[in-house]
Amino acid sequence: MDKLNLDAHISQQFNEELEEIRNHVMTMGGLVEQQVADALDALVNGDSALGQRVVRDDDKVNRLEVAIDEECNRILARRQPAASDLRLVIAIIKTITDLERIGDEAEKIARLAMRLAEMERPANNYIEIDNLGNRVRAMLHDALDAFARLDAEAAVAVASEDARIDREYESIIRQGITFMMEDPRSIRRMLDMMWAARALERVGDHAKNVCEYVVYLVHGTDVRHVSMEEMEREIRRGR
Amino acid sequence: MDKLNLDAHISQQFNEELEEIRNHVMTMGGLVEQQVADALDALVNGDSALGQRVVRDDDKVNRLEVAIDEECNRILARRQPAASDLRLVIAIIKTITDLERIGDEAEKIARLAMRLAEMERPANNYIEIDNLGNRVRAMLHDALDAFARLDAEAAVAVASEDARIDREYESIIRQGITFMMEDPRSIRRMLDMMWAARALERVGDHAKNVCEYVVYLVHGTDVRHVSMEEMEREIRRGR
Repeated sequence: MDKLNLDAHISQQFNEELEEIRNHVMTMGGLVEQQVADALDALVNGDSALGQRVVRDDDKVNRLEVAIDEECNRILARRQPAASDLRLVIAIIKTITDLERIGDEAEKIARLAMRLAEMERPANNYIEIDNLGNRVRAMLHDALDAFARLDAEAAVAVASEDARIDREYESIIRQGITFMMEDPRSIRRMLDMMWAARALERVGDHAKNVCEYVVYLVHGTDVRHVSMEEMEREIRRGR
Repeated sequence: MDKLNLDAHISQQFNEELEEIRNHVMTMGGLVEQQVADALDALVNGDSALGQRVVRDDDKVNRLEVAIDEECNRILARRQPAASDLRLVIAIIKTITDLERIGDEAEKIARLAMRLAEMERPANNYIEIDNLGNRVRAMLHDALDAFARLDAEAAVAVASEDARIDREYESIIRQGITFMMEDPRSIRRMLDMMWAARALERVGDHAKNVCEYVVYLVHGTDVRHVSMEEMEREIRRGR
């Protein structure tokens, strides 16, 4: 595997700067994971106060994005990194954009949770949303882990989870439509449930994007818009 | 206004490279605009063949993104741009991500159009989607225009359009819910119509992002996550 030259800098301080930015990305990732988890809890347990907190805390996510973005710009301007260092900075600029958008989706879910908390609870306690949400949370966690360890093989494995999430999402939508048609009084509630499912599905898309940046970062190959098969081939070739 | 030093390079070739990348972004922008226009036409006129073409052409958008991204990486590595040149390259990297996502939304609308073409036509011929779509197209066009002319004031004006699009989107969703409740047989069709409206609303969000990159590029200030009032203040201060 193409070894990153993170340790090979003449300037120890530059190393430390890069390391610090990576730590900030992990902090932002942890916050975004928490936001998704809390938004899901708020929805499944009808906890409006928790929903409110998620909405309020989205600002923290946004501020972290702006701060990390500025660090990246400063590094590009002052250090003029090359090769894998440059790829790291570009991958970070892209990753934080996706993390910020995940934060936006968590906020959307939290707002839906607050609205759903006022409505009748379904017999199954939103078990299907809970299942989808937990799958999405695991995927996001693993994507951030692959980023932290710069592990391209893990990133490819995580990215392949997205197809399963899409299938689970489609199935929730189909069930929701059936439910609406059987009981038109449930339409508003079912729609909010579907919007929440869609938001979770999009979190999965963003987690997949992060995985693609990890592959790009480690291998220097752009694997966006290629099939999972091609992505795996690319990884094998890189070994 | 903080003058960009695009013309002040020692290296004429570097100028030409930056100019070429900007042209490629405009080409990608034009293609994406066409995709949105065609997807909307396919939906409003029930034209499945056109929908199919939009789905097929999304690959062209993706290939352009990858190509421009590579050009940007090459410029960062070889030319090590500073100040406004660096801001230009970073703004381009971000802009093409949003343009690519707009392409994805156009593809979604085209797929919905193909499904809707098989269903009963509404009496009003999807006039509300047509209106929203045309407003979104105008916003996207103006955002790209602000980018082409590096006009931060125009960018702020265009970004403020997003609030109006959000209101129009909300009103379509409310109407759709009422319609579903009155006639549960329309549920599937109304849902697809709502997904299309949501996709158009997201195109507006991405166009707003492009406007924010233009302000950042011209003024060197990050205006994401600030209110429209603050954005306008920032512009006035820059004058």
